[in-house]
Amino acid sequence: MTAPVDDERLARIALAHAGELGNARLARLVAELGANELLTRLREERTLAEEVSPIAVKLRGAQPERVLESAQRRGLRFVIPGDAEWPTGFDGLAHAEDAGRHGGPPLGIWVRGNGRLETLTVNAVAVVGSRSATTYGAGLAGQIGYGLASTGTTVVSGAAFGIDQAAHNGALAARGPTLAVLACGVDRPYPVAHTQLLERICAEGAVISEQLPGSHPTRVKFLTRNRMIAALGAGTVVVEAALRSGALSTANWATRLNRVLMGVPGPVTSAASGGVHELIRGGRAMLVIDAAQVRELVSPAGPSALSHPRAPERPADGLTESELRMLDALPVSRHVTPGHLASQVNLVEAEARRALRSLARRGLAEERAGLWRFSPQRLASHDRR
Amino acid sequence: MTAPVDDERLARIALAHAGELGNARLARLVAELGANELLTRLREERTLAEEVSPIAVKLRGAQPERVLESAQRRGLRFVIPGDAEWPTGFDGLAHAEDAGRHGGPPLGIWVRGNGRLETLTVNAVAVVGSRSATTYGAGLAGQIGYGLASTGTTVVSGAAFGIDQAAHNGALAARGPTLAVLACGVDRPYPVAHTQLLERICAEGAVISEQLPGSHPTRVKFLTRNRMIAALGAGTVVVEAALRSGALSTANWATRLNRVLMGVPGPVTSAASGGVHELIRGGRAMLVIDAAQVRELVSPAGPSALSHPRAPERPADGLTESELRMLDALPVSRHVTPGHLASQVNLVEAEARRALRSLARRGLAEERAGLWRFSPQRLASHDRR
Repeated sequence: MTAPVDDERLARIALAHAGELGNARLARLVAELGANELLTRLREERTLAEEVSPIAVKLRGAQPERVLESAQRRGLRFVIPGDAEWPTGFDGLAHAEDAGRHGGPPLGIWVRGNGRLETLTVNAVAVVGSRSATTYGAGLAGQIGYGLASTGTTVVSGAAFGIDQAAHNGALAARGPTLAVLACGVDRPYPVAHTQLLERICAEGAVISEQLPGSHPTRVKFLTRNRMIAALGAGTVVVEAALRSGALSTANWATRLNRVLMGVPGPVTSAASGGVHELIRGGRAMLVIDAAQVRELVSPAGPSALSHPRAPERPADGLTESELRMLDALPVSRHVTPGHLASQVNLVEAEARRALRSLARRGLAEERAGLWRFSPQRLASHDRR
Repeated sequence: MTAPVDDERLARIALAHAGELGNARLARLVAELGANELLTRLREERTLAEEVSPIAVKLRGAQPERVLESAQRRGLRFVIPGDAEWPTGFDGLAHAEDAGRHGGPPLGIWVRGNGRLETLTVNAVAVVGSRSATTYGAGLAGQIGYGLASTGTTVVSGAAFGIDQAAHNGALAARGPTLAVLACGVDRPYPVAHTQLLERICAEGAVISEQLPGSHPTRVKFLTRNRMIAALGAGTVVVEAALRSGALSTANWATRLNRVLMGVPGPVTSAASGGVHELIRGGRAMLVIDAAQVRELVSPAGPSALSHPRAPERPADGLTESELRMLDALPVSRHVTPGHLASQVNLVEAEARRALRSLARRGLAEERAGLWRFSPQRLASHDRR
């Protein structure tokens, strides 16, 4: 279904030619004046020296109809606020605190892929991290991507090397939904080595970008792209990030947008986990170890007691004080009287007998002709716990 | 210096024969009645059936003078509240919330070693963890023990296999202070494999226990011992602990005693770190990665900004928005005019020139005859960051 061509849509494409996408001031002006009116004004803008401004020069050269037509011929669509596909998650970008210049909602997003954004973004989590991931980090990102996508949570990431790639691949292995947000045109495979990965993401989900088709990525575009990744997820999981990793800019955005920020710890000897540990240490990110804990934190119901990892139950769980003391006192190699045990642990004999019967029911004590010892079945491990 | 023999001291030794050391009720009764009066009453205690109580039988057999003499001959000392060596850290045990039965300050402690407790416990941190430590955990415990002891912080632990052992050894390698708290008599090398380790701890610090000399360790004694480890440290660091590790009981005591609880994370794939991750995840323990962060958290001054790990500075640190955009736009292989660059990034030319000069000062841009390119000195790494 191709969206109808209208002036607002074309004006937003034209404004994209002014560069500086993700510029908070531009976004505010669009919200205030409408894209059409802003475009008209900018096209006439002059500098103080009465020269035509550089932006005006660029905008005069824009050919939004041609850009849109060409994109649609190649199966791309341009989604703007008001369209059914427009992700509600972007709304927060208009009001993010401390957003600086790289803020504001996108003017519109180019979409490539079979997935519909209104479906893909209902239940989504961003999984991001270092390009130079370790095998530990990549393995975990893959597991978390798999775990999220296999229960219907869309894995949002940036299709970069390392953690991004592993997270997308985990989602794809689960045949689950995944969404890649690029810092270049959606028709441009970047990095080139991920051409196939991007094709597969398009098949199961979608690849999106606010950048014009054909445009190449720059440092600033990566930074502005990160705000979209954070905005699309109910939470952001940082799997591995060194102290200066770009993934931390996504983490900052998650905080500004009041999304749940989560971090997966690693060996403290691994520089690749240094940034994550700082996030957790500073109380900014919640520590998570798997997809279940991530889901719990982003679920509308909030954390439940259910997902606390449990160690296997042991026979001695829930023993009373008296039973514990009797268990300690029970000899392994010979049988003794309850009275002997009772005096050893300072219990009256009736209480000692009660404790012994309880231990026997748990398979921890054994009686023979009124005498007691530690159960020989437990002897192999010598584990009284 | 041998402490003078007095009734209160002997009464406390006699009460130790009643067993159940670390019993909160016993400690309260001692605080209320005095050890002498309590001893007299317990010696006469009878059951409802008018039999002499098991405790009374035990207490009648106690020979505190002989125990003390024999211990002193072997270089042990028995320290009680009011002695110069009595650690003030134990005072909190009298008021710990939710302490259950295994609470209360010790009746007295047996000390073996050259170190004086009043010195060793002024500035102390407990380092505890799993007996079945991984090489990762043991290595870290050793580093943290070394780092703490080398700056004069006493490393308190339990002399067990694994993390305890590594923490003590780290402190000893730094020729720094360390203190072992045992669940058996201080004259009893437990575990036997740690005979030499315990000797070395006695040489640099001290080995202490509330258990009578000669007594053997039991499960209950390990649990009550843990409260003393937590009480002696200004904070407790858990290095590795599985979900059901005994080290978590020390962690619980640290919390009850309002000590700083810290945890060193590890790979989430390592079961040995599972308990630590739960402590951090639940907001009970602070994440720490090294001795410096531990020292910072337990220092009376509290956390400072100084110990935040810093990545090395990069040439692009602190660039303005305009400079970042110019840096992105600078070609690598050819020189271009400032005007060309200005229009590419939507800057007026004066601002573009200012940005270029700033980049040149940082060694990121190079001028030749009024034309500019990305600095060739940076080309090797292609790193514009």
